[in-house]
Amino acid sequence: MSTEEIAKGLIELCSKGKFEDAVNKYYAQDIVSVEPVAMPPMPAESKGIDAIRGKNQWFEENHDVHTIKIEGPFLGQNQFAVKFHLDMTPKHTGQRVSMSEMALYTVKDGKIAREEFYYNAGK
Amino acid sequence: MSTEEIAKGLIELCSKGKFEDAVNKYYAQDIVSVEPVAMPPMPAESKGIDAIRGKNQWFEENHDVHTIKIEGPFLGQNQFAVKFHLDMTPKHTGQRVSMSEMALYTVKDGKIAREEFYYNAGK
Repeated sequence: MSTEEIAKGLIELCSKGKFEDAVNKYYAQDIVSVEPVAMPPMPAESKGIDAIRGKNQWFEENHDVHTIKIEGPFLGQNQFAVKFHLDMTPKHTGQRVSMSEMALYTVKDGKIAREEFYYNAGK
Repeated sequence: MSTEEIAKGLIELCSKGKFEDAVNKYYAQDIVSVEPVAMPPMPAESKGIDAIRGKNQWFEENHDVHTIKIEGPFLGQNQFAVKFHLDMTPKHTGQRVSMSEMALYTVKDGKIAREEFYYNAGK
């Protein structure tokens, strides 16, 4: 499967909120997931598909996502970027927030081997 | 200078079209610039600040940029992403196009050591 096919398939699933299906279909067993900083209880870097499933489960259990908008994919060589815009309420604050982030995915041997997140600090 | 300071300074200059000033102020001498594919006469990968100046000069001489919109920065660890939206006319086609791309910058020792571009293949 090409990087573009993986990118478009991933976006299709994520836009429907099917993050677990996306992990099952496209992620490598030894996937590495990188955040800019640790977000306790999540470390900045998670390794292995079970850790990523745990991270996604933690996110789903602790956030009410109202809408998700996706832009892209932005294609590179063996990488692609996706812009996510989330309108959500973290349960621990109860305060609704609107935020955007970029995710950069690296494809190796037909699977996503690395995902890295970047958070919008612009105005 | 922090990654965030470099990111915001770069965006300020680029939004005014001051790409050369951005290179002079923020780029490392051994900067590497990576495109998804070669765009003749430009190779996919350019190395060194003089090559990047040549690449930018080629772009400026061969494109009429009507408007540029910038989103971000999206901050990671020692990296940041910027979304560019360009409304421009490549001189060799004469056909006005509207396109968006992501640029990912890697900061090392207070300078931008790598830039990598990703082109929007979404709808």
